[in-house]
Amino acid sequence: MSWESKVKKTIPYTAGEQPKDRNIIKLNTNECPYPPAPGVLDAIDALKSRASDLRLYPDMNATALVDALAAFYQIDSSKIFVGVGSDDVLALCFLTFFGSGDPILFPEITYSFYPVWADLYKIPYKQIPLTPEMTIDPFEYAPGLTHVKNGGIIFPNPNAPTGVEEPLSKIERILRANPDSVVIVDEAYIDFGGTSALPLIDRYDNLLVVQTFSKSRSLAGMRIGFAMGNEKLIGYLKDVKFSFNSYTMNLPSIMIGKAAVEDRSYFEETTGKIVKTRERFKEALKELGFVFPDSKANFVFAAHPDFSGDYLFTELRKRNIVVRHWNSPAIREYLRITIGTDEQMDAVIKALAEITATAQNTNQ
Amino acid sequence: MSWESKVKKTIPYTAGEQPKDRNIIKLNTNECPYPPAPGVLDAIDALKSRASDLRLYPDMNATALVDALAAFYQIDSSKIFVGVGSDDVLALCFLTFFGSGDPILFPEITYSFYPVWADLYKIPYKQIPLTPEMTIDPFEYAPGLTHVKNGGIIFPNPNAPTGVEEPLSKIERILRANPDSVVIVDEAYIDFGGTSALPLIDRYDNLLVVQTFSKSRSLAGMRIGFAMGNEKLIGYLKDVKFSFNSYTMNLPSIMIGKAAVEDRSYFEETTGKIVKTRERFKEALKELGFVFPDSKANFVFAAHPDFSGDYLFTELRKRNIVVRHWNSPAIREYLRITIGTDEQMDAVIKALAEITATAQNTNQ
Repeated sequence: MSWESKVKKTIPYTAGEQPKDRNIIKLNTNECPYPPAPGVLDAIDALKSRASDLRLYPDMNATALVDALAAFYQIDSSKIFVGVGSDDVLALCFLTFFGSGDPILFPEITYSFYPVWADLYKIPYKQIPLTPEMTIDPFEYAPGLTHVKNGGIIFPNPNAPTGVEEPLSKIERILRANPDSVVIVDEAYIDFGGTSALPLIDRYDNLLVVQTFSKSRSLAGMRIGFAMGNEKLIGYLKDVKFSFNSYTMNLPSIMIGKAAVEDRSYFEETTGKIVKTRERFKEALKELGFVFPDSKANFVFAAHPDFSGDYLFTELRKRNIVVRHWNSPAIREYLRITIGTDEQMDAVIKALAEITATAQNTNQ
Repeated sequence: MSWESKVKKTIPYTAGEQPKDRNIIKLNTNECPYPPAPGVLDAIDALKSRASDLRLYPDMNATALVDALAAFYQIDSSKIFVGVGSDDVLALCFLTFFGSGDPILFPEITYSFYPVWADLYKIPYKQIPLTPEMTIDPFEYAPGLTHVKNGGIIFPNPNAPTGVEEPLSKIERILRANPDSVVIVDEAYIDFGGTSALPLIDRYDNLLVVQTFSKSRSLAGMRIGFAMGNEKLIGYLKDVKFSFNSYTMNLPSIMIGKAAVEDRSYFEETTGKIVKTRERFKEALKELGFVFPDSKANFVFAAHPDFSGDYLFTELRKRNIVVRHWNSPAIREYLRITIGTDEQMDAVIKALAEITATAQNTNQ
């Protein structure tokens, strides 16, 4: 025996490629192609003039950032919790709300970290298959039907990596069927034309809506995520968080995050541009024979009936275009392609046209 | 039943006071009285010119920061792990190394988050009393004597909140007696004249040394901590970390942290000043009749035989001086006073002289 026998063993994570070559078109991690709001530059100036304050612990409540979010969403600050990216917020939610011992429920095809966090906190879980149309069936999330009870429910809306958005009516059906469980709607991709469940938090005290600054606010590099829900839910999150790590949001996050939230028109302009580009891209994909569920996210999850996902991924990579591809059986024919600028998506379409044409010639 | 029955219940944390009034002398959270290294200003300029990169996920390995630490400590980068403050790093260490099911050991009077993290991850623990001189007795950490086996060992050196430093010979005795456990030396306060256990990591593959940027590097506002140990230990930490939250260090942390580490002479100058001020302060405290274990940290843990800790704390607070005081029985007569500038400590001494003189007159 040695100390190694006591170590927690995990399967090391294989990261998505982060190419440094600026000539590469990087469409594999759903980042925003546009820079953050111009106010971020002023915030960095302000940070410089306050550099001596970096010697002090930051405001553990991140009040300035929380208040800016409260003003943006027109809700009370007591209904908002911020963390180091939505991964940090979501993991804390698992710890805080999902520890009853009953299995939690989430879709079979969904964000890959859900089963990881469940395992981390020893939370049993049940993965619910999507319908053939890649949608969520609320019937499957109703206690007493497919299962006796659950310890909580979580799903992204729009779902990842499918991009499929569920209507609020469906989310309400799940909420109404589960008053005894916390239901978390992970809205990482809601700002690209989707309808947020946020207005429902006042009607359902068991609803938590989680969002991020990494996609629609062009701040993946800052690691800022947040949860919105009634005061009681947020209070429980804070209690758990402050009980074991008081200071997590650093001063730059508070200042830069605040500046990004305060510029509503820039936010609407950039997300609007991405939506427009996405719709153009979908049309072009369709013309090339690709199939894909209708995406409301800043990516499209597409497959081609005549070419394997692996082949398309490799051919794009040869042309300096990096998209996301998984080898798991259920989704291995699909590529998840982030929506970049119009120019970038034109290049993707051009490459895909070439790849599908060439290969067809070769195969014939 | 409702969803609330499923929530993890914790005792809400009562934060140390964070006064906003700039006239207050704030000596309650062991922050550095000096601003961060001047190079931090250049790093903030560089951040501004790279602001558009904030749209991208940061380097998940924080390579620039890790390499700067490797150069500073003259060790290989593969022996370093960075996280969002040493609280983040230490909590991850508990999760990674202490889950064998056997009780971990740490001192009875020590950093208050150790039992919290143990409870969080359902790790049993045993708190070992300090000697009457507030030192650690290595005999008590030897398996087969006071207990059959342990699941790991952690202690701060210098200890908090006592400030007492243990010699490396004692740490080696603990390491030699526990080859089958990971031993973590939490060196948050090592840079104020203490001797780091870092040179021992090549001889003991079960030793992990954890440090922070919050005290000696004047960057509490940035939340940066790090662990140093052999590649295998660091590899396990990375595996667990990347398995559930890949991106935690934001771009400003990487850039500003790097700038702070690169200025060795500023680091030596500021820590040197604090050591000098501390020694002067100790002399003055002694003259006022205070008793305290000899501190090697950036604070002094002091009591007065004639006055209660509560009384001294309250009287200092009235004079706009904030220090740390706990109500737990074992240490309630003590104040933990952070070492500030010479001017600040002169003001503390003046106030304590006044308080002890006045009260003596009143009591007589």
